[in-house]
Amino acid sequence: MSSIFSKIISGEIDSYIIAEDEKHIAFLDAMPLVKGHTLVVPKKETDLIFDLESEDYKNLWAFTQNIAKQIKKAVPCKRVGVAVVGLEVPHAHIHLVPLNTIDDLNFKNARLTLSADEYKEIQQSIINA
Amino acid sequence: MSSIFSKIISGEIDSYIIAEDEKHIAFLDAMPLVKGHTLVVPKKETDLIFDLESEDYKNLWAFTQNIAKQIKKAVPCKRVGVAVVGLEVPHAHIHLVPLNTIDDLNFKNARLTLSADEYKEIQQSIINA
Repeated sequence: MSSIFSKIISGEIDSYIIAEDEKHIAFLDAMPLVKGHTLVVPKKETDLIFDLESEDYKNLWAFTQNIAKQIKKAVPCKRVGVAVVGLEVPHAHIHLVPLNTIDDLNFKNARLTLSADEYKEIQQSIINA
Repeated sequence: MSSIFSKIISGEIDSYIIAEDEKHIAFLDAMPLVKGHTLVVPKKETDLIFDLESEDYKNLWAFTQNIAKQIKKAVPCKRVGVAVVGLEVPHAHIHLVPLNTIDDLNFKNARLTLSADEYKEIQQSIINA
């Protein structure tokens, strides 16, 4: 069974895509901790990020660096935080979370509910950055 | 003024070092969220991880991949989580945290107090892995 991220990659599930290349995709988290919370995902399904082949792993982080810089330009925040957890979806993914306080990276927090217009506005501002 | 991590790198402050090369160091967090919580730090002081030069940034993550695999072997956990926050120390650093539940990565949690013997035991088990 393909993961929810593979369904986003295939277009079976809609998402607000920020950037995509042959091996990676970045899209807005559907249950964001804060506005601008983005997921970066390798297209090939691998559970543990550290099990990726060395070159694939480095290229994933290089792709992530560019996305993080765009988020920092587009979203007011002190810095862009990183988290890799993966206890829920067994398809490696990197959370990029605009941070103002340490609690912005607390996965126990209630998630935001945004309107489609709000998602589109954030998506466009990060793409344009 | 050099950061607390630069003082660890220079040996001015003691730490339980896991691995070190010319440009990187990994050592046990002095205020761990869980046993095995490790910090990976580039020796050159840079505040934001995403501001590292592309090659330096990729090499830092490659070094981190090896450390994470050692932690996974040495410390009982479901997976090794990653966090980059940096709101307190302006010297880029990657947290590697053995995870069993999502709350293991909650930076608001109380930190563990370990004895020197406990630190040495964890340090040695990760080094040997």
